[in-house]
Amino acid sequence: MPTLDLALPPHAHDTLLHHLLRTRADSVARIADLSDADCTVQSMPDASPAKWHLAHTTWFFEEFLLVPHLPGYAVFSPAFRYLFNSYYDTVGPRHPRPQRGLLTRPPLEQVLAYRAHIDAGLQRLPPGAVPAALLELGLHHEQQHQELLLTDLLHLFAQNPLHPAYRPPPAPQPAAAQPPSPHWVNCSGGLTEIGHTGTGFAFDNEGPRHRVWLDDYALAQRPVCNADWLDFIADDGYATPTLWLADGWRWVQEHGVRAPAYWQPHDDGFYTQTMSLHGLQPLQPQAPVTHVSFYEADAYARWAGARLPTEFEWEAAVGKHPLSAAVAPQFADHSWRVPIPAADTAPNALHGMWGGVWEWTASAYLPYPGFRPAPGAVGEYNGKFMSSQMVLRGGSCATPPGHVRASYRNFFYPHQRWQFTGLRLARA
Amino acid sequence: MPTLDLALPPHAHDTLLHHLLRTRADSVARIADLSDADCTVQSMPDASPAKWHLAHTTWFFEEFLLVPHLPGYAVFSPAFRYLFNSYYDTVGPRHPRPQRGLLTRPPLEQVLAYRAHIDAGLQRLPPGAVPAALLELGLHHEQQHQELLLTDLLHLFAQNPLHPAYRPPPAPQPAAAQPPSPHWVNCSGGLTEIGHTGTGFAFDNEGPRHRVWLDDYALAQRPVCNADWLDFIADDGYATPTLWLADGWRWVQEHGVRAPAYWQPHDDGFYTQTMSLHGLQPLQPQAPVTHVSFYEADAYARWAGARLPTEFEWEAAVGKHPLSAAVAPQFADHSWRVPIPAADTAPNALHGMWGGVWEWTASAYLPYPGFRPAPGAVGEYNGKFMSSQMVLRGGSCATPPGHVRASYRNFFYPHQRWQFTGLRLARA
Amino acid sequence: MPTLDLALPPHAHDTLLHHLLRTRADSVARIADLSDADCTVQSMPDASPAKWHLAHTTWFFEEFLLVPHLPGYAVFSPAFRYLFNSYYDTVGPRHPRPQRGLLTRPPLEQVLAYRAHIDAGLQRLPPGAVPAALLELGLHHEQQHQELLLTDLLHLFAQNPLHPAYRPPPAPQPAAAQPPSPHWVNCSGGLTEIGHTGTGFAFDNEGPRHRVWLDDYALAQRPVCNADWLDFIADDGYATPTLWLADGWRWVQEHGVRAPAYWQPHDDGFYTQTMSLHGLQPLQPQAPVTHVSFYEADAYARWAGARLPTEFEWEAAVGKHPLSAAVAPQFADHSWRVPIPAADTAPNALHGMWGGVWEWTASAYLPYPGFRPAPGAVGEYNGKFMSSQMVLRGGSCATPPGHVRASYRNFFYPHQRWQFTGLRLARA
Amino acid sequence: MPTLDLALPPHAHDTLLHHLLRTRADSVARIADLSDADCTVQSMPDASPAKWHLAHTTWFFEEFLLVPHLPGYAVFSPAFRYLFNSYYDTVGPRHPRPQRGLLTRPPLEQVLAYRAHIDAGLQRLPPGAVPAALLELGLHHEQQHQELLLTDLLHLFAQNPLHPAYRPPPAPQPAAAQPPSPHWVNCSGGLTEIGHTGTGFAFDNEGPRHRVWLDDYALAQRPVCNADWLDFIADDGYATPTLWLADGWRWVQEHGVRAPAYWQPHDDGFYTQTMSLHGLQPLQPQAPVTHVSFYEADAYARWAGARLPTEFEWEAAVGKHPLSAAVAPQFADHSWRVPIPAADTAPNALHGMWGGVWEWTASAYLPYPGFRPAPGAVGEYNGKFMSSQMVLRGGSCATPPGHVRASYRNFFYPHQRWQFTGLRLARA
Repeated sequence: MPTLDLALPPHAHDTLLHHLLRTRADSVARIADLSDADCTVQSMPDASPAKWHLAHTTWFFEEFLLVPHLPGYAVFSPAFRYLFNSYYDTVGPRHPRPQRGLLTRPPLEQVLAYRAHIDAGLQRLPPGAVPAALLELGLHHEQQHQELLLTDLLHLFAQNPLHPAYRPPPAPQPAAAQPPSPHWVNCSGGLTEIGHTGTGFAFDNEGPRHRVWLDDYALAQRPVCNADWLDFIADDGYATPTLWLADGWRWVQEHGVRAPAYWQPHDDGFYTQTMSLHGLQPLQPQAPVTHVSFYEADAYARWAGARLPTEFEWEAAVGKHPLSAAVAPQFADHSWRVPIPAADTAPNALHGMWGGVWEWTASAYLPYPGFRPAPGAVGEYNGKFMSSQMVLRGGSCATPPGHVRASYRNFFYPHQRWQFTGLRLARA
Repeated sequence: MPTLDLALPPHAHDTLLHHLLRTRADSVARIADLSDADCTVQSMPDASPAKWHLAHTTWFFEEFLLVPHLPGYAVFSPAFRYLFNSYYDTVGPRHPRPQRGLLTRPPLEQVLAYRAHIDAGLQRLPPGAVPAALLELGLHHEQQHQELLLTDLLHLFAQNPLHPAYRPPPAPQPAAAQPPSPHWVNCSGGLTEIGHTGTGFAFDNEGPRHRVWLDDYALAQRPVCNADWLDFIADDGYATPTLWLADGWRWVQEHGVRAPAYWQPHDDGFYTQTMSLHGLQPLQPQAPVTHVSFYEADAYARWAGARLPTEFEWEAAVGKHPLSAAVAPQFADHSWRVPIPAADTAPNALHGMWGGVWEWTASAYLPYPGFRPAPGAVGEYNGKFMSSQMVLRGGSCATPPGHVRASYRNFFYPHQRWQFTGLRLARA
Repeated sequence: MPTLDLALPPHAHDTLLHHLLRTRADSVARIADLSDADCTVQSMPDASPAKWHLAHTTWFFEEFLLVPHLPGYAVFSPAFRYLFNSYYDTVGPRHPRPQRGLLTRPPLEQVLAYRAHIDAGLQRLPPGAVPAALLELGLHHEQQHQELLLTDLLHLFAQNPLHPAYRPPPAPQPAAAQPPSPHWVNCSGGLTEIGHTGTGFAFDNEGPRHRVWLDDYALAQRPVCNADWLDFIADDGYATPTLWLADGWRWVQEHGVRAPAYWQPHDDGFYTQTMSLHGLQPLQPQAPVTHVSFYEADAYARWAGARLPTEFEWEAAVGKHPLSAAVAPQFADHSWRVPIPAADTAPNALHGMWGGVWEWTASAYLPYPGFRPAPGAVGEYNGKFMSSQMVLRGGSCATPPGHVRASYRNFFYPHQRWQFTGLRLARA
Repeated sequence: MPTLDLALPPHAHDTLLHHLLRTRADSVARIADLSDADCTVQSMPDASPAKWHLAHTTWFFEEFLLVPHLPGYAVFSPAFRYLFNSYYDTVGPRHPRPQRGLLTRPPLEQVLAYRAHIDAGLQRLPPGAVPAALLELGLHHEQQHQELLLTDLLHLFAQNPLHPAYRPPPAPQPAAAQPPSPHWVNCSGGLTEIGHTGTGFAFDNEGPRHRVWLDDYALAQRPVCNADWLDFIADDGYATPTLWLADGWRWVQEHGVRAPAYWQPHDDGFYTQTMSLHGLQPLQPQAPVTHVSFYEADAYARWAGARLPTEFEWEAAVGKHPLSAAVAPQFADHSWRVPIPAADTAPNALHGMWGGVWEWTASAYLPYPGFRPAPGAVGEYNGKFMSSQMVLRGGSCATPPGHVRASYRNFFYPHQRWQFTGLRLARA
């Protein structure tokens, strides 16, 4: 993260502000077809209502940009400062997370008015006195919540026996053949630089850049797909305790887990709401598996005679290639499809082979050597979550274009699986 | 409950149907100022969303009236038969109660369309072939949910730090003087007939009419009011274990109970959302206390050197008088005020002194001698709840006019207090 | 309960004291074959360790008799006044109930020394100054815990895969034929006196004696037996929701209940630890069913086209006959068998047909009209438990001889079944 | 871990067996002053009864050594194979962990007979056919449970208001002066070999030996002591959310944590059962703090402007020095004191400065590169616990002499603190 007190020259400020406002407009575009009720309900404590996401990202700009930096700024509503704080203890007390879904008031239209009020305020910010890093942090924060808004909505809709669709389903497509087994791509180890290079924006947890020793290793050229996972199920993977971490086996038994989240067995095979937001659809065998927990990913890798890569192996090998070219267009046609590698890809190429699914790694989410959170409230952004979570690398079909990069560290608890979480295999 | 197979002559059928449709219109009127989101969220497992109440009462008519009795009737939506069954095991599986609040779809407008569809069906019912008792049962069932709709909404709004108001507050009223201590009204015991007389509608749990022996007793002429309750709090009633039943004391300690539900201590005294649906308002000392649990009612009575009346004592003495004349007008002007007795009421008169608050009794909710539920699904209406609950008599400001009567047996678990529940004292 | 300040003349005092000390010796005799560890462990919060029972009944005498009434009495251990208080809020704070099983110290031998210390103190009590009612209350309190000691031990042993036996099994007995269906005994109703007559000891909850109106009714001549219960299981009684109270059905589903407690299905039928304390033994078809909850008893009665009797019906008809003559001898030969009626019993005789099993009634445990607990700590004995529990009448093979009587009111929560709880059918 | 199929020559076999039997005798010596009841009760699901530890380690030898390798061996009790399996899914079903404390039978003496039976069997093992690694693994497994036996017992005794002592307290000692702030010892980084060198026994999780890059760093010369911790408490460390990881802050609030486990505030300062097993004693300011969770250790380090070391930093710097010479004698005189560094230790010396307390590190418990568990049941020993736990390095006053080494990786969940867990500070 750049130094927080760096102010931008007017032209750069305008460019950044333009980008920010367009990003904020994208957030609102994501709820275009949703009702106030859709945006209000919270389906589990881990998830938040869409309305809350829209308000909280707005609160972030009000609290950290407008109140301290815009002379004469009038707070939209004092109550919102309490209601829409997420977890910033430095800022003050806050509405309890599990009760976010009880806020039928303010109505959605008032939250949209709140957004407009803050957008107007952002446009009045004097360029010279503005910390550019906070503007940028706010922009990327907004993007993170754009993804959560969709995954939380998917969770809500998946609880509904009516299986509502977020978007109308696309035209039926010809059934794809089962994808061939992925090639193994050999990667050389050695003393390796890891972490953000300093060019462009990054969150604080992506640095400091530092050296890590890696032994030689190999990575699967593509993520594990649904057809692979069906083999794991057919081979009693969910009923074989020796494949599982002890915590994972307990989780499987306590929750009766038998398949990835949202999979429903029907007479003609599994259906799922996971690969798209089109409502319940037949499982696409050639699509990357998603909505698996770290426990499942780890057990699958053991079953396959392989392992998960560390986050460093991933960054050094996969992340240096560009994102999948197939990801961006999905946002244009709202097809929400997830790309898979072509069958004839060269065996040594990881080119364009990531970005459609978050990939669990074998690395715990811990600070890089020398990591030090920023002082004040924004220092609570990432560092305080560095325990008991695992790192994911990649991106997903729900991630806004331009948001991810090779050094990006996503993180969730090992049992969580309501994100678009999959995996890629590694071996020694 | 009248025999279920009694058919009405055409004229009586029309009158009953007219009454029923007007009652159903009243249900919709209760949500006139609410949003789809307000009607969708469930604030606790005990409560249900307003939308669910509107749909479930409608399901009742579809399932028990239209499907079996209206030739050629087309079901509105097969999914609704699953979604809006409340607890009828005989009918089939049902949507889990704690997940009622996740149904952002169907939207409110579709539930209203469902209601219109069923209302139209009801009007096509051929008079001669219709079981009048089921029509009547459906009407009273609808009324019960009208009350629950408001108490559940109050619970939802009470969780919201914005303190939304259901209705705009009335003009401020002059502060009332503290009400005088209530007179004790002496009542003669003896062998007493208890239960519904058979004139007009009654639920099955109000019969069979049977004899109960009562010793002489005395009843307070009015319910306990907020000013009384403030004395109990000031005298450390909530911190004195010997006043409480063992279960009640555990409940007080586990939940940190220090006042009736919804009471909030402010610098200038208690505020509450309980006495009205006008949002947070200063406590009215002269109004009956509401939102107390059975445990609290019982402890208060012990503190006051008295006891709760049995449901039989109540029915024999209070219930034979007419309802408070002050209750009905509240529905006209939407003031939702709760009547209290005038200071100069004659000491032997319980006339008009009930109906504004549900009064906990000392009686467990058990079947009357000879009670036998109706065969089939409607037999699940009342009988299967006859364990671990206590009987309340009276009515409340949220009860539809004409719904209650002397023999009416309401029932809740001893810890529940989100209804308009208060108490009246008795002594030997 | 007699007036608490009544002092006995010296001779009567000696007789009572003699009886008391013999009773206390019986308590110790019950653990003759148990280890310190057997007496220390607590198998669930509802149950208490045997060591705790032995210490708590002793504490009762120290706290209520010796400390206030024996001049110069030296407390055995101040810590014990905290450790072995059960639920007397008036006396002071106490060791939390769920942690009773963590007290490996004091060891059993020290608890026995505590008992000897208190027994010696009791013998030094000056006759003239002693409240006889407290001595008697302590004696009956001791007897209550004698029964609990055995049922709690049975629960502990039932959790142990080794199936330890409390007593060596008796010689094998010839298999009994299935008992015939019980006769129905017709009973006349009318205005009936209920409650203790005032002769001999009774707990406060057995009075005041008062009038209750009863309609005519009929009672089964014997309790329901295991063979009957096997028919209920075979007819899918545990899988038929319409037989159950709503709370009961939820309990069945949440706990996967499929049989009475302690029943284990084997290839050659059910085995159980319930009918005896001889370890796991084949089910005896002709023995009364025990270890059923109120929910199960109520569901069985509905399945059988009958109902449970009220506690008043039971007292008026069954309780006026003497206890089963077969109960007492069991304590002599430690066979712990439970008597069942002979097949040729006269159809109108309930003579000797109770006392082997506690019988759930249809009555909630509530105060009799005019009930008023004694002032002070002993007033906490019964009254504060009068909510959400059901009354049982009868007695059991684990009840000390002479402890029960027609007016005795035992009480447990509807889901509890670790006592020797069964049922008898009634019908209108 | 050496290859599992390596057999030892007769002389080496005898030496190892002698060492093993002496170790097993040490286990029994640890319960010399305990009762059967002390050894039976389980005070929380994380802890196990002493009797269970004694039986489980014995089961390990029966299951993995005697049954497969001793011709003609007769199993002591088939039931024990079920009762005393800890977590080996490969071996078969097992008694549920939270119910270990319900086994009042078998009595302690039978468990001791079981031990003697297995010890005799071990002595009959033919040298040539025995896998030495399994003997050694069993020995170290026995030692691990020796430590757990004491920490679990401490937890049990700490729940007892009588504060029992495991050993009689030593003679009072003069109060020590507060220790000076520890020196910082500078350590050079670079590419560093980590993991067991292959000489002597090690668990599988200590290898494979591999290279790790370390930047330069500094370590505190001694662990944090109680006097330091009192400063943290006095400075509101437990009430300052910005010091805590998010999970840690939630843990502090949910459990009301205000001090290390077992600390009790008295009028004259804290008392604790933690530093010894002598019952409740005044806190010793100069002793290392123990019984803190990872969350507390991490928050303390942040408060002190430092951080926890990684397990690699610890191994490279601290672990290469010998254990504290003060640890071993404690086992001779049973004083259970924990050594602290002398005030005049040279600033660059970590010599002898570890082994009295387990030190939380900043490293998650994860497999080393190339780690692969052994096939079969012993492969479940360590690997399946590699999620959500943190590594501790060091040893404790309860660790058997000779059990720990520089590469030893202990691991617990971040909230657990019933072991002798403390910390040492690091900085960049």
